[in-house]
Amino acid sequence: MLGRLVTVEGGEGAGKTTQMTFIRDYLERKGYQVVMTREPGGTPLGEEIRALLLEPRAGGMAPSAETLLMFAARAEHLEQVVRPALSAGYWVLCDRFTDATYAYQGGGRGLPLERIAVLEAWVQDELRPDLTLLFDVPVVTGLARAGRRGATDRFESEDLAFFERVWAIYRERAALYPERYRIIDASRSVEAVRAELETVLAKWLEQQ
Amino acid sequence: MLGRLVTVEGGEGAGKTTQMTFIRDYLERKGYQVVMTREPGGTPLGEEIRALLLEPRAGGMAPSAETLLMFAARAEHLEQVVRPALSAGYWVLCDRFTDATYAYQGGGRGLPLERIAVLEAWVQDELRPDLTLLFDVPVVTGLARAGRRGATDRFESEDLAFFERVWAIYRERAALYPERYRIIDASRSVEAVRAELETVLAKWLEQQ
Repeated sequence: MLGRLVTVEGGEGAGKTTQMTFIRDYLERKGYQVVMTREPGGTPLGEEIRALLLEPRAGGMAPSAETLLMFAARAEHLEQVVRPALSAGYWVLCDRFTDATYAYQGGGRGLPLERIAVLEAWVQDELRPDLTLLFDVPVVTGLARAGRRGATDRFESEDLAFFERVWAIYRERAALYPERYRIIDASRSVEAVRAELETVLAKWLEQQ
Repeated sequence: MLGRLVTVEGGEGAGKTTQMTFIRDYLERKGYQVVMTREPGGTPLGEEIRALLLEPRAGGMAPSAETLLMFAARAEHLEQVVRPALSAGYWVLCDRFTDATYAYQGGGRGLPLERIAVLEAWVQDELRPDLTLLFDVPVVTGLARAGRRGATDRFESEDLAFFERVWAIYRERAALYPERYRIIDASRSVEAVRAELETVLAKWLEQQ
């Protein structure tokens, strides 16, 4: 049996990274073997590309270059980690994937979405997530939470309008792909979010 | 008047880097202002991407990731350097450009050329070199010369068959685009190559 690709998405301070291990443990309790990974990153090359992307940079970076770097890291990740794992029957749980590119480079940076779709097809062929958990938290709340973490990277230092555009695209994509998107109310306590995740995952697994 | 894009291509040890300043000086004597640059590189981000690409790497790198990194560096370079320079009327003299991606990632790594063409259109729109000087030297001679430079990078350490495939694509493209390609016999002495460059450039400039 082929594994499934489960992605976790959301803006800054949505708490998704904190919940990743909970999701993995839940899926493992259900009998699946899970590879937990992230984008950009997930490979030695990918992590080096991630560093290039996040590092504050005088003079910025062309949105087209930023998007190509995201997909370069993704191509390596798919080839070295994701596709081999799925082929071997592992489930892959990935902190951010191509929906984030649509949201951040498309919504945030204003790159036309159809240009992103060209690269998505180029890199992924037919591969798409089977399930996407979108952590929903009001932008202002999320930024306040992220701010508490201290040092900000090249994305975290963007302004409120940037994150509103990011979120608008996430919402649009959730509406476009209701069969794979599940929205998690991430404004509540860690425990409440866990309870909702359990309910959502149990229901989704039942439907498979 | 818009500037022109002049690219210099060729395999390892073809001596093109040595001749770049000669070409620039020649064009400047003819009254053009020239920006001399290189790919991958030519910008701070591009040079960091270049380092990722050249550094020997255990486990290699997916050819698709390598190609996307090349185009990421190119996108930044076009946005920050090449297009502004051309718009301001400068000529841009670039050590390697997209023909090298066809040759190295297409020929060398075996990535289908039509996949490279998709990224070329994505990054460059209609921009193509006005003149491409292809430094022709037998592969074995070139490798012997490059070997003398000492430490080898991730491309220089490839085998003979790799460079034969690189060269086959260069030759194929020179035949496809005779209006912009000029082949320079780079197997001769530095002075002989200079003399040929002068003849070729003078003739090309006359035709403009």
